[in-house]
Amino acid sequence: MQQRSEETRSHILEAAVKQFSVHGFNKASVDSICEQAGVSKGAFYHHFRTKQDVFLALLDGWLQTFDQAIRASKDRPVPETFQMMTEYFPYIFESASDNLPMFLEFLQQASRDETIWQASIAPYRRYHKHFAALIKKGIAEGSFVDVDPNLAARLIVSAAMGLLLQSLLDPEGAKWDKVARETVQLMMKSLVKE
Amino acid sequence: MQQRSEETRSHILEAAVKQFSVHGFNKASVDSICEQAGVSKGAFYHHFRTKQDVFLALLDGWLQTFDQAIRASKDRPVPETFQMMTEYFPYIFESASDNLPMFLEFLQQASRDETIWQASIAPYRRYHKHFAALIKKGIAEGSFVDVDPNLAARLIVSAAMGLLLQSLLDPEGAKWDKVARETVQLMMKSLVKE
Repeated sequence: MQQRSEETRSHILEAAVKQFSVHGFNKASVDSICEQAGVSKGAFYHHFRTKQDVFLALLDGWLQTFDQAIRASKDRPVPETFQMMTEYFPYIFESASDNLPMFLEFLQQASRDETIWQASIAPYRRYHKHFAALIKKGIAEGSFVDVDPNLAARLIVSAAMGLLLQSLLDPEGAKWDKVARETVQLMMKSLVKE
Repeated sequence: MQQRSEETRSHILEAAVKQFSVHGFNKASVDSICEQAGVSKGAFYHHFRTKQDVFLALLDGWLQTFDQAIRASKDRPVPETFQMMTEYFPYIFESASDNLPMFLEFLQQASRDETIWQASIAPYRRYHKHFAALIKKGIAEGSFVDVDPNLAARLIVSAAMGLLLQSLLDPEGAKWDKVARETVQLMMKSLVKE
């Protein structure tokens, strides 16, 4: 029973991605999502209160890949933590490819809807804090040079957003997961004490 | 006469920004742009062939601020060139603020329309090449450490795109022109030979 309910939820989420990508958030309806998913409206409302709820669940699911990556090996020395993070890059860039329309929908809705804006802004502020804390830890344990942790964290988050955006806009322009891994190594070179 | 024609052109461009931002590219029409600008359709077609033409002119105008910044003092030593570039940041971030809807329209149309995609991708590929050449020059003149110019250029372009996107999404989240200037200084610290 539990398993069937989980399956229904995934069907709804998959259908919603299609509807939002093709028709945009505003034009997609609970009806069209149910029809595409092959589920009843009763089943839909068992899992989600509103169309916006589904949208937020999709945003959340997308961010979980990042969250897994930044939680990687958090008890190791900091340079190693960064190194292990890069192992998630192939998954991150793979799951991002073909998702440009959905990513733009997130941005579009964030610019129009306060709740979605909060949900979109919160994660990258959280990533900023996380990286600032990690760099502070690196300085304290003696593996990192003395740098402004907030500033270095901004650079990391900005570079990550920029790489992701470029990979979405220009998937064939580079091997993005490789570029991202090498970019981390380049930044590490300037952060790690020799 | 020349001056009046230039004024008409700016009126059309200003009206187009409003129409595209509020209604989106698809719903905005040449009629609505003319009405908003207070110009005749004849005057419109004297300046632009199509609605897409206006859109591309806006994209082009937006990029000119960047182009001015990266051309700054190109005959000076490379670290100085980077330094002088940062003086344009207040203008860049100021002109970006309040332009999130228009920026998203650029991305949205780029994902749907081959001509606009080409026009959107071309500039950042150009910036990438420009920075790679600049870093190469810095290494050759002996002011930069030995680094992979392509990789360092990717980092610079990615960080710039990420900072710009963050400033659009979260204008109150930081003093973005200051953050951008400090980020350049941080990157310079790792590039410039001691």
